[in-house]
Amino acid sequence: MHAYRSQTCADLTSANVGDTVRLSGWVHRVRDHGGVLFVDLRDHYGVTQCLCDGDSPVFDQVEKIRSEWCIRIDGTVKARAPDLVNPKIPTGEIEVFIRDIEVLGSAKELPLTVFGDQEYPEETRLRYRFLDLRRQALHDNMVLRSEVVKDLRQRMWDQNFNEFQTPILTASSPEGARDFLVPSRLHPGKFYALPQAPQQFKQLIMVSGFDKYFQIAPCFRDEDPRADRSPTDFYQLDMEMSFVEQDDVFATIEPVVRGCFERFGGGRTVDAVFPRIPYAEAMLKYGTDKPDLRNPIEMEIVSEHFRGSGFAIFAKLLEQEGTEIRAIPAPGGGSRKFCDRMNAFAQHEGLPGMGYIFWREGENGPEPAGPLAKNIGPERTEAIRQQLGLGKGDAAFFLGGKPDSFVGVASRARNVIGTELGLTDENRFAFAWIVDFPMYEKDEESGEIDFSHNPFSMPQGGLEALDGDPLEVKGYQYDLACNGYELVSGAIRNHRPDIMFKAFEIAGYGEDEVRTRFGGMVNAFQYGAPPHGGCAAGIDRMVMLLADEVNIREVIMFPMNQRAEDLMMGAPSDPTNEQLRELRLRVLPPED
Amino acid sequence: MHAYRSQTCADLTSANVGDTVRLSGWVHRVRDHGGVLFVDLRDHYGVTQCLCDGDSPVFDQVEKIRSEWCIRIDGTVKARAPDLVNPKIPTGEIEVFIRDIEVLGSAKELPLTVFGDQEYPEETRLRYRFLDLRRQALHDNMVLRSEVVKDLRQRMWDQNFNEFQTPILTASSPEGARDFLVPSRLHPGKFYALPQAPQQFKQLIMVSGFDKYFQIAPCFRDEDPRADRSPTDFYQLDMEMSFVEQDDVFATIEPVVRGCFERFGGGRTVDAVFPRIPYAEAMLKYGTDKPDLRNPIEMEIVSEHFRGSGFAIFAKLLEQEGTEIRAIPAPGGGSRKFCDRMNAFAQHEGLPGMGYIFWREGENGPEPAGPLAKNIGPERTEAIRQQLGLGKGDAAFFLGGKPDSFVGVASRARNVIGTELGLTDENRFAFAWIVDFPMYEKDEESGEIDFSHNPFSMPQGGLEALDGDPLEVKGYQYDLACNGYELVSGAIRNHRPDIMFKAFEIAGYGEDEVRTRFGGMVNAFQYGAPPHGGCAAGIDRMVMLLADEVNIREVIMFPMNQRAEDLMMGAPSDPTNEQLRELRLRVLPPED
Repeated sequence: MHAYRSQTCADLTSANVGDTVRLSGWVHRVRDHGGVLFVDLRDHYGVTQCLCDGDSPVFDQVEKIRSEWCIRIDGTVKARAPDLVNPKIPTGEIEVFIRDIEVLGSAKELPLTVFGDQEYPEETRLRYRFLDLRRQALHDNMVLRSEVVKDLRQRMWDQNFNEFQTPILTASSPEGARDFLVPSRLHPGKFYALPQAPQQFKQLIMVSGFDKYFQIAPCFRDEDPRADRSPTDFYQLDMEMSFVEQDDVFATIEPVVRGCFERFGGGRTVDAVFPRIPYAEAMLKYGTDKPDLRNPIEMEIVSEHFRGSGFAIFAKLLEQEGTEIRAIPAPGGGSRKFCDRMNAFAQHEGLPGMGYIFWREGENGPEPAGPLAKNIGPERTEAIRQQLGLGKGDAAFFLGGKPDSFVGVASRARNVIGTELGLTDENRFAFAWIVDFPMYEKDEESGEIDFSHNPFSMPQGGLEALDGDPLEVKGYQYDLACNGYELVSGAIRNHRPDIMFKAFEIAGYGEDEVRTRFGGMVNAFQYGAPPHGGCAAGIDRMVMLLADEVNIREVIMFPMNQRAEDLMMGAPSDPTNEQLRELRLRVLPPED
Repeated sequence: MHAYRSQTCADLTSANVGDTVRLSGWVHRVRDHGGVLFVDLRDHYGVTQCLCDGDSPVFDQVEKIRSEWCIRIDGTVKARAPDLVNPKIPTGEIEVFIRDIEVLGSAKELPLTVFGDQEYPEETRLRYRFLDLRRQALHDNMVLRSEVVKDLRQRMWDQNFNEFQTPILTASSPEGARDFLVPSRLHPGKFYALPQAPQQFKQLIMVSGFDKYFQIAPCFRDEDPRADRSPTDFYQLDMEMSFVEQDDVFATIEPVVRGCFERFGGGRTVDAVFPRIPYAEAMLKYGTDKPDLRNPIEMEIVSEHFRGSGFAIFAKLLEQEGTEIRAIPAPGGGSRKFCDRMNAFAQHEGLPGMGYIFWREGENGPEPAGPLAKNIGPERTEAIRQQLGLGKGDAAFFLGGKPDSFVGVASRARNVIGTELGLTDENRFAFAWIVDFPMYEKDEESGEIDFSHNPFSMPQGGLEALDGDPLEVKGYQYDLACNGYELVSGAIRNHRPDIMFKAFEIAGYGEDEVRTRFGGMVNAFQYGAPPHGGCAAGIDRMVMLLADEVNIREVIMFPMNQRAEDLMMGAPSDPTNEQLRELRLRVLPPED
């Protein structure tokens, strides 16, 4: 017989009754039922109920074991009495009478119990991650993540992509987030950087004549802490294709994402069609470029109804250039209580408040209520109602000013309204491609033009478009939003050095500077670069959505805490003097 | 029609004759056959012959294109004349008459030509890697690597392993090679390290209750340059299993490795059985723990034949403790010319020389020749011949002293002899498990005991064995050798804190020191650690063997040069003052 097990803890059924078996696993819990000890033995696969009484030669030893000890038992499989069968687990028909036991690894007093649902501070959970990971929910999340990554790979291979590994030690790149630096010992004073993404490398792979690349790629950003992202690294399904247009990328990645969500979404519906929404439209209707389309609410511009109206605040606002009034319709939100709560929400978000109108049952149809309706009078109020298609029992909320100043709150208000009124379908994954991102944006204060997103995207209209108003130029750049998250981001790349230099010139970067900053790629583009494009999908976020978790640490095996520390391994830590000497580095004292 | 192609450059056959097609790719070469321009158009998939003459509306433009320009052409598929059919390529039956052309990306003068076999200095190849990668051999190597990794993954999944990603930013570990350090911005003065291997993490995954883990894992070592390894990072198929013994690990990984080599070995035979050779036996017979078993030569101890003999050098040597004389039989090496060449080889390797005997056809059977035979006389010579099973036309070489002083040369001499005499079967992948590695070794000078290999391995015989002579203790530690390379390395781990502390104590490490150095893992072992073991297989080396390459840079997409520089991307590079300030680091001037 094998030294540790003849079966796993999920294998035994009534077909094994009478067999002598050997099992290994962890003591999930021990119960003493009047001289009969019940031991739930757990391994990666399942749980098997074991028991012994005074008839067992090892009763004394079994009495001593405690939760989370790792043990091996030998025993005999017995059928459970019919009324004791547990239909919820595969081994629920049997139990194992313990005839021998070996303690493989005992446990000290547990700082975190595996059995049960007790909650612990995150610090405890991270420090004793190896215990936390034994708990079912986290254990399942890790297996899910593993299966999701496998599935994504398979779907890419099925479309004839090759997975290639790109360097993890590379050159520091000046755009985007902050790099992690790695000092070089062979070249003291010089540093490698960990890649924020394999962006330049995947483009170089295309220039190298490969046709379809993908990689489950680790990406590194030295970012300040935030709840929904890792402060150090994350994983992307990164892909790139040559000789493609935007539609080709969509046609490639859509079935990958949809198929994965259908398979692992736990029965939640997955949109069959991913609509395409221009960036400007998304910002108008949803106040964000990652709208949650499970929520049917669409905002509308209602400025005309307020211009010159008796609601002085809005009327006055509208006299300033670039301002507008936007309405968030709230079907079913027609109560003063709800409207006041939303008004308080807006105040909590830092706005003076959020005007509203709601409609009650009236003698001649819907009857408007609320101070704002009184101020603008019945005609304007009715025109608003008709524009928004609302009726009795509904409400509308209003925000005014320059859109930049309120879209953030508007977007969050839309989410809250959708959730509170039950309009958001929690049982659905709603996707949308956001397209036609602007290439440039103007800094409000300095008036300077800079790239609004990825500087490597191909401007729509090519070189000619760059001769016009930069703020009108759109890029072949796209995001895939899902349930309010940005899940995928990508672009058709600018593979033409002439267009690239021009694009950078508009943003104030001279040719020399571009060559210095992006030399590796720019140089390569001068030797027969193919048109190419691709995208990257966030693995951690995808698994978060599928596992229905809001904290990224629930889907990472050994995550850092929010201060970018690994409490279990003690990272980061002090270097030795020898290490610093070899790197020719000195740590400076803190500045006061 | 698609903007770039209706087919790839490998798709068109005689079935397409008459079709209007669109192709994109690189100009492999252009030939002018008296007013007819032949353009070999190449993409990732293949090559298609295109042509045009004065009848084409774009003849003038086609005349201007040069090698490695990226172009799109439209044209008509024509059958080639029967005598011009090229059966070696899938598109050899057709050619495409060019009716339209678009230059997608032109190319400057090429520093490296893609067409042809011209050799270039490695510096040029690495700087223009994107051109080098377009060459068929390197292109094929990358695709092979991609397929090998996919295949390995599939075989692991088929055995119910889960792939889990482990952290790439972790704590510095004091054993083994040098770590790459990563300064922390949030904790100035503290550093992360890049993992030399996921060793501690995979053991923690086992303690976390997962049963079978694998990962295609990047590993980082700040090592000094060597031809057959990357100076910065490499990839491993890393795996670990709970509740297993050595045989279980072998039974798991053997079919993975064998299957992969059978599939991608290009018809070379793959051993059906991987023999197991104890470390001591391997060192004796082959002089190395990674023997090349394609070579049938086995060394033997022949000390007794030289003790007190007329060959004074050896006779004297044998009076010292710990010395021996070892023979390398060389079937078919029986000529003075060959023996002298091998003697010169030994001198080149730093030894005074290598004694030899060879056997010619004599009147009464094999007749020994060479100075050594004369010195020891016919009886001893004949006894040696009989022990080694040699005959006429054969030779034997002799090395003496303490084995440590000559096994390196002996091992290399065995390789040379095997190759030069055609004994080594070049058409085979020969595997062997090397087992029973010693746990400890004694430093010759200091007399101190230290771990000879992995300190985390379980000593055979457990706690009791550690009470005896440490140098006699063997570990459950194993390597898989293939054709002279170490391909896999692994161990059954020491999961018991009591045995671990004792094992470290023997090597001079106190309990506190062990807790400080390996705190994450040692702490976890106190909470119900399961017995576990595993191994790691070198991906780069595996692909090198399969691709029949001797330089690791031929199987890595974007490798560093031997000075750990990325010439294409310009890494490592100077940090900005801002970066150093944020990390609170100062670079010191070089010491004189």
